[in-house]
Amino acid sequence: MPPTPPTGAQTVTFRPLISAQEITPGFDLAQLLWEAGREYWTPGLIAIITHKAVAKAEGRLVPLRQVQPSPLALTYAQTCSKDPRLIELVLQESQRIVRMTPRALIVQTKQGPICANAGIDLSNLAPSSEGEGEPVACLLPRDPDASARRLALELEKKCGFLVPIIISDSWGRPWREGIVNFALGSYGLYPFSDYRGSLDSAGRPLRVTRMASADALAAGAELACGKLGRAPFVLVSGFPWSPSSAGSQELLRPLERDLFP
Amino acid sequence: MPPTPPTGAQTVTFRPLISAQEITPGFDLAQLLWEAGREYWTPGLIAIITHKAVAKAEGRLVPLRQVQPSPLALTYAQTCSKDPRLIELVLQESQRIVRMTPRALIVQTKQGPICANAGIDLSNLAPSSEGEGEPVACLLPRDPDASARRLALELEKKCGFLVPIIISDSWGRPWREGIVNFALGSYGLYPFSDYRGSLDSAGRPLRVTRMASADALAAGAELACGKLGRAPFVLVSGFPWSPSSAGSQELLRPLERDLFP
Repeated sequence: MPPTPPTGAQTVTFRPLISAQEITPGFDLAQLLWEAGREYWTPGLIAIITHKAVAKAEGRLVPLRQVQPSPLALTYAQTCSKDPRLIELVLQESQRIVRMTPRALIVQTKQGPICANAGIDLSNLAPSSEGEGEPVACLLPRDPDASARRLALELEKKCGFLVPIIISDSWGRPWREGIVNFALGSYGLYPFSDYRGSLDSAGRPLRVTRMASADALAAGAELACGKLGRAPFVLVSGFPWSPSSAGSQELLRPLERDLFP
Repeated sequence: MPPTPPTGAQTVTFRPLISAQEITPGFDLAQLLWEAGREYWTPGLIAIITHKAVAKAEGRLVPLRQVQPSPLALTYAQTCSKDPRLIELVLQESQRIVRMTPRALIVQTKQGPICANAGIDLSNLAPSSEGEGEPVACLLPRDPDASARRLALELEKKCGFLVPIIISDSWGRPWREGIVNFALGSYGLYPFSDYRGSLDSAGRPLRVTRMASADALAAGAELACGKLGRAPFVLVSGFPWSPSSAGSQELLRPLERDLFP
C-alpha cells in the first residue's frame, strides 16, 4: 500500500550549505552536515548530499597507479583514447556493459543504476599525499542506500527527528543532451509521489501515476549547489514527503521490464 | 561561445501560482500568468508552465469521436487494449516509432522529444460541451519553443523585463521507474549550465561540462505544483540564468549521436 500522495501545491526551497572543509576518508559527514545546517534544522526538511562527499568520506578513492588493466581494458582504452587503468576500474565496478562504443562506455553499475563510466570521476579530488596531482579515481559508494541510512540515523541522533537523506549523482540520459542529477541513494522518504487511485479535476482517474520525486529533488538540488560552489549539501524545505524505509533501489526498473537494455 | 556558467551556490525557490480558472481555447495565458504572479514579479525570475495549460489555450484538444483510426491503429489497439482513436492520434503526432510493444508505445514526436504516447493525455480535461464526459485528447503544443517565446514576449510587455518561460511535461525514462518533468519548450534562458573551460577545486578541468538546467528546473517545479494542486504555473527565484534565444530544441540529442534509437 503506497503512502498517500502529496495533494496540494506548496513553495519548495533548495538551500545550499557551503563547506570549505576537505572531506577525507573516515570523515564524520553527519557532524559536518549537522554543523553546516545548524541554523536551519527543523522537522520536514530533506538533506541532499553529493555522492562525491559520501564516496570520499567512505574512502572510495583509488590512485590509478595501483590499478592493473586487464586485456579488455587495454584494448578498449586504445579505441576510446582513455587511460586503461580508468577503464579497468569501470569494468570492475560494473555488473553489465550496456553500450561500448568509441565515444561512450555505458554500464549497469554493481549498485544498480545505469550510467557512463560506472559513475567514476577523476575531477574535484585533491592531489594525493604521495604524489603531487597524481590521478585518483573516485568510485561510487558501495551501497548508497545504506550510506544514506547511516547518515540519516546519525543525523537523527543530533537533531532529535528524522531528516531523509538523498545522495545525488549527475548522469547523462538517452535522447537528451546535458546531464541532470539523480537519486543514487536515499533513506527516510518514499522515493515516489504516488497518485494511484487519485482523480483529476474532472473526476477521471489519473493516468500518469508515479512521479519519481527523489530524482526530481536531486535534480533541483543541483540548481542550488552548482558545480563550483563548494556546497556538498542542499536542504530542501516545503516538500511534503512520506516516511518510508524504501530506498532509491525502488527507482530502478528491472531489466525484464526495460525497453532499452 | 556559450554563456558564462553560474559559479556559486544560491538558494533556489519554487513557488506555485494557484488558479482555479478553467483554461479554454483562445485563453490569454500571459494575462492569467501575470495576474497570478502579481505580487512577485521582479527581474531574475523564471516562469514554468505545464504544457497542458498551453495546449488547452492553443486549442490542441481533439474529441476522440472525430478521429478515424487507420488499419495500423486498429490492429495495435487490440494488442495493447487501448482506444484505437487514441492510438491513431499518437501515430499522427509522431515522426518515428521508437518502441511498439503490448505494454508501451514510445515515439519521437513531431516536436522532437521522445516519449510514450506522443505526450497525448486524456486526464484533467473538463467534459466537452457537446457530450457529458466525452473523451477528449490533449495534444502537445505544435511548437513549444514558439509558444514559450510568445508567452515570454507578451509577459515582458506587462512586466517591463524578460521572464524566461519553460513549458514542462512529465515523461517516463529508460532504466528508471516513475516519471519526472522535462523542458518541452523554453525561451529566454540558455537551457544548459555550461562549465566547459572551468576548473575544479584542485585546478583540474571539469570533465562533466553541461548540466541540462532547463530540464532540472522543470523537474523541480513539479515538486511545487503537484498533480492535484491546480497550479499551472511555478515561479523560480534565485537561479542565475543566462539570457539566450536558444530554445529547448538544443536539449534534443541528434539521432546519429544517440545510443538508444
